[in-house]
Amino acid sequence: MNSSRLQVEEYKKGILSGNRVMLARAITLVESTLPDDQNLAGEILDVIIPYTGNSLRIGITGSPGVGKSTFIESFGKTITESGKKIAVLTVDPSSQITRGSILGDKTRMEELGKNPMAFIRTTPSGQTLGGIAGHTRETILLCEAAGFEIIVIETVGVGQSEFSVKSMVDFFLLLMLAGSGDDLQGIKKGIIEMADAMAVTKADGENIKRANATMADFQQALHLLQPQSSGWTPKVVTCSAIHSKGIVDIWNMIQQFKKEMESSHLFEINRQNQQSFWFDEHFQTLLAMDHLKFPSVQSKRDALKTLVQTKKISARKAAQDLLDKYHQAVSSKR
Amino acid sequence: MNSSRLQVEEYKKGILSGNRVMLARAITLVESTLPDDQNLAGEILDVIIPYTGNSLRIGITGSPGVGKSTFIESFGKTITESGKKIAVLTVDPSSQITRGSILGDKTRMEELGKNPMAFIRTTPSGQTLGGIAGHTRETILLCEAAGFEIIVIETVGVGQSEFSVKSMVDFFLLLMLAGSGDDLQGIKKGIIEMADAMAVTKADGENIKRANATMADFQQALHLLQPQSSGWTPKVVTCSAIHSKGIVDIWNMIQQFKKEMESSHLFEINRQNQQSFWFDEHFQTLLAMDHLKFPSVQSKRDALKTLVQTKKISARKAAQDLLDKYHQAVSSKR
Repeated sequence: MNSSRLQVEEYKKGILSGNRVMLARAITLVESTLPDDQNLAGEILDVIIPYTGNSLRIGITGSPGVGKSTFIESFGKTITESGKKIAVLTVDPSSQITRGSILGDKTRMEELGKNPMAFIRTTPSGQTLGGIAGHTRETILLCEAAGFEIIVIETVGVGQSEFSVKSMVDFFLLLMLAGSGDDLQGIKKGIIEMADAMAVTKADGENIKRANATMADFQQALHLLQPQSSGWTPKVVTCSAIHSKGIVDIWNMIQQFKKEMESSHLFEINRQNQQSFWFDEHFQTLLAMDHLKFPSVQSKRDALKTLVQTKKISARKAAQDLLDKYHQAVSSKR
Repeated sequence: MNSSRLQVEEYKKGILSGNRVMLARAITLVESTLPDDQNLAGEILDVIIPYTGNSLRIGITGSPGVGKSTFIESFGKTITESGKKIAVLTVDPSSQITRGSILGDKTRMEELGKNPMAFIRTTPSGQTLGGIAGHTRETILLCEAAGFEIIVIETVGVGQSEFSVKSMVDFFLLLMLAGSGDDLQGIKKGIIEMADAMAVTKADGENIKRANATMADFQQALHLLQPQSSGWTPKVVTCSAIHSKGIVDIWNMIQQFKKEMESSHLFEINRQNQQSFWFDEHFQTLLAMDHLKFPSVQSKRDALKTLVQTKKISARKAAQDLLDKYHQAVSSKR
């Protein structure tokens, strides 16, 4: 790919100097399904990889209506005012079908969107390599190379996306709304175990009492859970984004978390485990698609499918035969 | 594997003659994780495959406490009294950890267990090829070869097991209990769309009124769903297994379903699609494990993992390098 060497260098220079247009274009390449774009994306990642990893990665999730964008708007303001650059990456599992209707990204985070210290990007759930997770991970790396010190990965609390997000962040924050079904019964199983902190949102006006009650419920419930192996005790707090109440406290808590994890080296160990996991996932995805490249394997599959459907051979035997054919195709290619 | 040819013939003869001991032993081979057992299981499946497929496969699911075993006991009695042989295969996702405590299989279906026309088998969720689904599918085939005309696949309504079961049955029956959280709000999303019929259980005594109300709710809800592409309209009924009420009606309904599907050829088409799906799944599982057989690929993986963790290369590049190494290992083996 020597022809694109110049292009790769241009991207590298642009991204490392914090050029937002180049960053946005590189992300588009990562998300693209075109083979040429994917090749270029791969080469860009290869050259920026030494400049990645220097951010604090924060996952934020919560049901629709909990006020995620209002929270992030206020949270982002706190962070940029402290002199740090923040990138907000939204993983929107709905965007493929509804073109963003759940998150309605056009009208969201207006203030933050205009802030030169902030960068906002919505990732549609695509069919590219590794799915949502694959390109969000690589987008994190690009943002880090571009100098963003705080990366927020926002996901709407539906589907399996939280589990993906958990595998790519340092700190996982669950937002909850009192009296909305986000109570101890209604909360999705497995989510609480993943959270490093829970914040009950919209704790203002008449809602304060209810928010405090929900906070107390969750604080009690947390005592029943296995403590985190890291030694960190998950916190439950309340906040009001529109009144900027509790937001600084949450930011301080996250910084405290980072300090504790760094002093026990668990910050770095978690990152390394995540990187291993990303590598394994990438490999499994590549592997699962690899045999599709060989026409001889494709025709063998069709023939075997007919044999299976007419009960001439078992599915197990057919799978073994197809694997043999794949081996043969790989060998004759080399 | 010529040494086991005699053994394979013995198994074939035993299974085809309906010998329950040989059937049970063959299922144990299918579930085994020992390579020799797996090889023998594969050979047995190869020779019995022409004798499979001649049953009606019925999936039955429902939350714990809905009365699945009482229902199946009564349902099985109806079937054996009509002169047909029934096999009940229980997929128990809990058995690995709790040794069967959710389903408590020892005290279940006592009558049916003694009936010479019935065969009951609990499949633990194992780590064998293809997971739960893999060996349940093959167990269905063995039971069919042994002459069982009705195969019931029972699963407890937790986890992803229903989706697996749906992919291996002709008819999917959802059992529900009135006033237990099995209402329109509480029922797991996606389950209703899979059901060919829903039966509200324990419709006896004081419970009748509640059961009827739940039935009416679901009948109304079904009108809002997309009709099945097969033309079949899912039915909602009530039943009482302990009073043998409604059980014969359910059996008649299932027979009616089979008749309709057969006359439109959708019965056979569904079976063929399922067989294709099984084949694909088997292949993907084999493929995902194949590279583990090559020590050179294993050491390359370890080396790449270190490079990824120290940010020397991207996960994407490392995955491609590992795939290349795998290709190389496959080629030099041949």
